[in-house]
Amino acid sequence: MFKSSDFLFDQIKCKSSLLCVGLDPELSKLPAQYKKQDQAYLNFCKDIVELTHRSAIAYKINVAFFESQGVSGWLQFEELVKLIPSECLIIADAKRADIGNTSKQYAEYYFNKLNVDGLTLHPYMGVDSLQPFLDFKNKYSIVLALTSNPGSEDFEFTKDLNGSLLYERVIEKFTQLAYSENIMFVCGATHPQEFIKIRKICPEHFLLVPGVGEQGGVLKDTIESGKNSKGGLLITISRKICYPSVELDFKTEVQKSAMRFQTDSYNYFLGV
Amino acid sequence: MFKSSDFLFDQIKCKSSLLCVGLDPELSKLPAQYKKQDQAYLNFCKDIVELTHRSAIAYKINVAFFESQGVSGWLQFEELVKLIPSECLIIADAKRADIGNTSKQYAEYYFNKLNVDGLTLHPYMGVDSLQPFLDFKNKYSIVLALTSNPGSEDFEFTKDLNGSLLYERVIEKFTQLAYSENIMFVCGATHPQEFIKIRKICPEHFLLVPGVGEQGGVLKDTIESGKNSKGGLLITISRKICYPSVELDFKTEVQKSAMRFQTDSYNYFLGV
Repeated sequence: MFKSSDFLFDQIKCKSSLLCVGLDPELSKLPAQYKKQDQAYLNFCKDIVELTHRSAIAYKINVAFFESQGVSGWLQFEELVKLIPSECLIIADAKRADIGNTSKQYAEYYFNKLNVDGLTLHPYMGVDSLQPFLDFKNKYSIVLALTSNPGSEDFEFTKDLNGSLLYERVIEKFTQLAYSENIMFVCGATHPQEFIKIRKICPEHFLLVPGVGEQGGVLKDTIESGKNSKGGLLITISRKICYPSVELDFKTEVQKSAMRFQTDSYNYFLGV
Repeated sequence: MFKSSDFLFDQIKCKSSLLCVGLDPELSKLPAQYKKQDQAYLNFCKDIVELTHRSAIAYKINVAFFESQGVSGWLQFEELVKLIPSECLIIADAKRADIGNTSKQYAEYYFNKLNVDGLTLHPYMGVDSLQPFLDFKNKYSIVLALTSNPGSEDFEFTKDLNGSLLYERVIEKFTQLAYSENIMFVCGATHPQEFIKIRKICPEHFLLVPGVGEQGGVLKDTIESGKNSKGGLLITISRKICYPSVELDFKTEVQKSAMRFQTDSYNYFLGV
């Protein structure tokens, strides 16, 4: 089933939330009770999902953290995908892309075998490198446009002879395809001043927005300038939810934090 | 041990070759005798390595083909890495890159745990996104610059206000780092006219060159315009070696084809 923008907006209204919970399990940061477990990452993420799924529209699983654990990590990753409630959008944040026949391998694995709903992708190699992902019309190709890291200044802001920035050209190019309903763009909350321009280029598309919290993005500004009539934003929060500063009563803290982002994000969307 | 450019040039002279064999195992293309085996990809690649290692300076393992097989694929990938002779450069062609703390996970896995010599990387997110890879001074960060696919026209050729193309800016930015001896660039053989310009920007660095053969790049032109005094090129050949058109006597064909690219590449380098 394609979790279309209408489906996502129904979920946003139903849960009163724009929250996407980021799952980035890192051994050194896990609460003590998980650290010694065989499947520490899976158990930790499973608890996070149980504690937050009433607040979350989507989950973004950071594949690198599982990949770094080798075979054991992949076993846990594949199990985790199955545990996420079906009304939530499941995003594999793997940032893949290669020439066509190779991208096809990735697309088959993530979209067909694992059945995740979306996959993050590097645009550098151009449209044909992402075509095998785009061909899955019921899955989201989530294209990096304007990332949240300081290094986004290096190339993404390169101005071309027409005055367009590289990240703007990326969005233009992909939204101009004959079918682009299955495309989202990654746009970091660390660049709130760019969201107005982004919305002129792609008024309809959902944006996956990292960078709120630890990286300095401000939730209110981001939502005010980035929202559209269907919500249009999946605000990704990872560390601020999964790694509370007070480890005592960890589960309560995780739940409270998710509920706060749920409430705040929806209130900012409604403008109240 | 860092397989420095001097080490690579010694190997190039010793083996009289610029050949990098690309390992892209694809079930539908494997010879019949492998298809039914449990570890078909490992067994196939193991035979390719045995048949070609006297001709090859490097092996480029296409990670997507293993990743597409899930846990079984990763088991085979990790075994394959161990089987490649130590005098050869082992490149994981995974095309990764993410924000710093996430890239660090990839770097630890490929460079520390698996001990491969090089990893291919997307530059889109900027220098800081690749810093965790660059910090491994004895491992190669192999940065995509000018790729061999038609879609390379979409963004890589974008001209900025100074008249530089995006791919040129990528090479400039990374070669200007305080330490860049552990950097290579991917430059596709489908753009032979660009190699002269590339060599002006980075005369010393090794280039990993896909695109000869199936994709249309011409070996002689590429080597003549891209070589430097230490060779400076790793010419990647995958399908033209691993999937001979005549399957009868498969092993002989693989060996013959590798030897042909070995001889031709070195002769073009010498200019004879």
